[in-house]
Amino acid sequence: MKIALAQLNFFVGDFDGNNSKMLAAVGEAKKQGADLVVFPELATCGYPPRDFLEFDDFIRRSERSVLKLAEAAQGIAIAVGSPSRNPVVQGKDLHNSAYFLEDGKIKHVQHKALLPTYDVFDEYRHFEPAKAFNVVEFKGKKIALSICEDLWNLGNENPLYTVVPLDEMMPQRPDLIVNLSASPFNYEHAKSRIHVLRANVQRYRLPMIYVNQIGSQTDIIFDGGSLVVSPDGSVFEELPYWEECVKTFDLEEVMRGGRNVEQPKEKISLIHDALILGIRDYFSKLGFKQAILGLSGGIDSAVVAVLAARALGEDNVRALLMPSQFSSDHSVNDARELAVRLGIQYDIMPIEPVFDSYLTALEPHFWGHPSNVAEENIQARIRGMLLMAISNKFGNILLNTTNKSEMAVGYGTLYGDMCGGLSVLADVYKTEVFQLAHFINKDGIVIPENTIIKPPSAELRPNQKDSDSLPEYDILDAILYQYIERRQGPHEIIRMGFDEATVRRALRLVNINEFKRHQAPPVLRVSPKAFGVGRRLPIVGKYLS
Amino acid sequence: MKIALAQLNFFVGDFDGNNSKMLAAVGEAKKQGADLVVFPELATCGYPPRDFLEFDDFIRRSERSVLKLAEAAQGIAIAVGSPSRNPVVQGKDLHNSAYFLEDGKIKHVQHKALLPTYDVFDEYRHFEPAKAFNVVEFKGKKIALSICEDLWNLGNENPLYTVVPLDEMMPQRPDLIVNLSASPFNYEHAKSRIHVLRANVQRYRLPMIYVNQIGSQTDIIFDGGSLVVSPDGSVFEELPYWEECVKTFDLEEVMRGGRNVEQPKEKISLIHDALILGIRDYFSKLGFKQAILGLSGGIDSAVVAVLAARALGEDNVRALLMPSQFSSDHSVNDARELAVRLGIQYDIMPIEPVFDSYLTALEPHFWGHPSNVAEENIQARIRGMLLMAISNKFGNILLNTTNKSEMAVGYGTLYGDMCGGLSVLADVYKTEVFQLAHFINKDGIVIPENTIIKPPSAELRPNQKDSDSLPEYDILDAILYQYIERRQGPHEIIRMGFDEATVRRALRLVNINEFKRHQAPPVLRVSPKAFGVGRRLPIVGKYLS
Repeated sequence: MKIALAQLNFFVGDFDGNNSKMLAAVGEAKKQGADLVVFPELATCGYPPRDFLEFDDFIRRSERSVLKLAEAAQGIAIAVGSPSRNPVVQGKDLHNSAYFLEDGKIKHVQHKALLPTYDVFDEYRHFEPAKAFNVVEFKGKKIALSICEDLWNLGNENPLYTVVPLDEMMPQRPDLIVNLSASPFNYEHAKSRIHVLRANVQRYRLPMIYVNQIGSQTDIIFDGGSLVVSPDGSVFEELPYWEECVKTFDLEEVMRGGRNVEQPKEKISLIHDALILGIRDYFSKLGFKQAILGLSGGIDSAVVAVLAARALGEDNVRALLMPSQFSSDHSVNDARELAVRLGIQYDIMPIEPVFDSYLTALEPHFWGHPSNVAEENIQARIRGMLLMAISNKFGNILLNTTNKSEMAVGYGTLYGDMCGGLSVLADVYKTEVFQLAHFINKDGIVIPENTIIKPPSAELRPNQKDSDSLPEYDILDAILYQYIERRQGPHEIIRMGFDEATVRRALRLVNINEFKRHQAPPVLRVSPKAFGVGRRLPIVGKYLS
Repeated sequence: MKIALAQLNFFVGDFDGNNSKMLAAVGEAKKQGADLVVFPELATCGYPPRDFLEFDDFIRRSERSVLKLAEAAQGIAIAVGSPSRNPVVQGKDLHNSAYFLEDGKIKHVQHKALLPTYDVFDEYRHFEPAKAFNVVEFKGKKIALSICEDLWNLGNENPLYTVVPLDEMMPQRPDLIVNLSASPFNYEHAKSRIHVLRANVQRYRLPMIYVNQIGSQTDIIFDGGSLVVSPDGSVFEELPYWEECVKTFDLEEVMRGGRNVEQPKEKISLIHDALILGIRDYFSKLGFKQAILGLSGGIDSAVVAVLAARALGEDNVRALLMPSQFSSDHSVNDARELAVRLGIQYDIMPIEPVFDSYLTALEPHFWGHPSNVAEENIQARIRGMLLMAISNKFGNILLNTTNKSEMAVGYGTLYGDMCGGLSVLADVYKTEVFQLAHFINKDGIVIPENTIIKPPSAELRPNQKDSDSLPEYDILDAILYQYIERRQGPHEIIRMGFDEATVRRALRLVNINEFKRHQAPPVLRVSPKAFGVGRRLPIVGKYLS
């Protein structure tokens, strides 16, 4: 039997587009001689559909898409993910289902049993878990269909769940496992995924066909990396990351094993590629081509400019250099040097005249009050406004350049440098931004050396440095990682050896700045715990604040 | 037996504050001669704690709070809600529990079985449902303890659930039902709550003590309205809305019934009071006193100014009037008249000089391009920036005045009139804002007549009217209500008799403006479906867009 893996990039709610793309893949799979083509989880409607699932019309359109695919299942069978209605009154209205389509008809439906309801996932908000587990017979083979998380309770060792879907199917003696996934990227995920798949294969001694989607859905990025695993537990082939592909495998060859094609998994390289895909898909799915960003001469905006140029092409990236009286000479020079190296359009727009007009307007009210964060924020906001003015006039999307360390401690101005349609780096700590810059420069200088080596500064008052207000980034980031990614409390972090006052201050800053993050742009997620939909904390709360 | 209902306002994560407040209520209940005092759901840590529940330290502090309360349970028993650890490896780590404390000890723990995971609720994200149901004996009576949603699957008629917690307890022959709640307000909720409680009582023929929290938690408002229901199904007493109270009832009197104290439930009056509580708690819990807002002369900002003055006192509300060349004469006059009537501080700050400085800075780039939304947005953003400058300098929180109709269709400027720490009206449709204005004026003019009768306008270009870009609000709001609150799709709404083109345009506007709402301030929730945490939709999506 020949099985095609169709690792595709879907668009949430684009039923016609997703359907056409799948029909083309069916054609390609037939050309490759496949007997069966497998698509990812919820491929008809796109994943994650979120509360669109509450619209009956949305479900009807998903159902129609399945029927259209069924018509195309002639001379080839199709496994595809789509929401289905739960006919039982009790329980949620929908299932997250894998359809098996053959001879123009729906031959079999298997629902997902393990519904992730943590981090970015809300599946129990909409779906009822599977109660029944049945294999489907196809060309003399019994296939155990499963969906994504269904593989992640191996031997019932995941404390979140009590059912092991594949264990339930084993009495029916399946010949192979097929899994339809939409499993989001983070820089650790590819390794865990292979680990879990191999462990499943070793438990059941069956070959595994695992199809993941690729593509970015606003903030959540899917890397692809679909897998074929031989029954001896070796990876037969891992499909590429960040690109669509339809590839057919002969089950007998897979059974024999011994091929071992894997993708490289270096953390910073993965983050680099993920962010590029995240930018590209955000623009293309929204129908925009042109980005704009402010170039400060600092490392964050430099890295975003490079990523944007790589994602969209240098002709589609525009930069504003907006110096003030507090900007150092080298800031403009460094920013200009980068823009020239990248070949992107740049304009210099000093903010002092606008700043002065604000100070004049505010003078009757500010008179007698010392200059403070109010004046600093005005500068950051003028820059935001100028960028948004160009964005509104010419149809560019503003890229936000805030990094995760700043986003965590609120070291940024709401409606100022926190503006933007998409936040590129807000899941990348400052120390990782440096690593990204070095990675970008590995084959020759793209980002000016001076941008990388000078001490970080917001340049909103004379001789300001980030380290005036914040701990050094290597310490800060280590504390933030424990608090955010690892959910360790103050006592645990202090016990690791960090200075108590620094820990308490950092955690307090994280908590009291929830109000800023609430109004931040969507953040491209590359870590196991990103700001945004996967991290839900009260704005008004007293804990550690 | 005498039972005290302690309807209190908690602060998420303020373990010491919540504990002191409960200890004081224990003292008050003792003074009233109570044998048992009942607190709301998750009272130790505050509700909703959200992902703070993922911190072991947070749970330890909740546990310590329960133990402190247990020490105080001398001569009086205490029922209190708090998270508890699930000792079983399989399943979520926590339960949402009701503790029964007596003689200095934890006597009984009953977990919540029905975990709302829809709209603003994420309980299955953190909690494992109860599997066991046991009554607790106290002074010769058997008490069926339950938590909030546990009452809401009466006769298993709620399709979301399969268990009926009180049915499970009935074989143990309880004498009364006690329910610990944290049940958020919306303008329909008080009626449904009484309906469901009476239906429970009629099913089981038992008296019911129902204790709800009051207070606002960022965006989610709790009204109180705790209830004592007699076994004949009559409401013995409904406690007041919007205020803390500790009140003791004699169970024998409750058994006899015939008291029937209920609160008035007029929709606009409830919304008015809810918004005032929402503003007041947001400020007091964040430790702020002073609000600022822009007064345009229009109805939205006028209503917010009145609500803010009522919530915080007129001395704590400051207004900026920021006319441009496109402002009509009456705008400033109407705004000034309101400020004078309310007795709030106001300043007039024309934006033209700042606007000119932006146009000068942008002239080399905008030259030859016709004036469009870019210039309109600059004006709205200058106003936002001036308000934020005063806010930053003097420590006021900026109140956002966007209404739900505008928020729905994106009729507002990101980083402009969409700025603010809290959105007061973004869950109130424009037609309801008019009703609020009439309600405010019912005993004499507060909001100038002219503000109410003139056609709504953003005044960002000459002679602009909202109706130039949008359908009339009575039609628009009716369509939005069907789409947002009722989750009806385009076909269903058109079938109700609305013009097809208008429906499609309105739904499209809602969907393509998800990016703006993503960066909006938290929205005080007063309807059954508010923008914010209870409505989760993709920013990048093609459905109906």
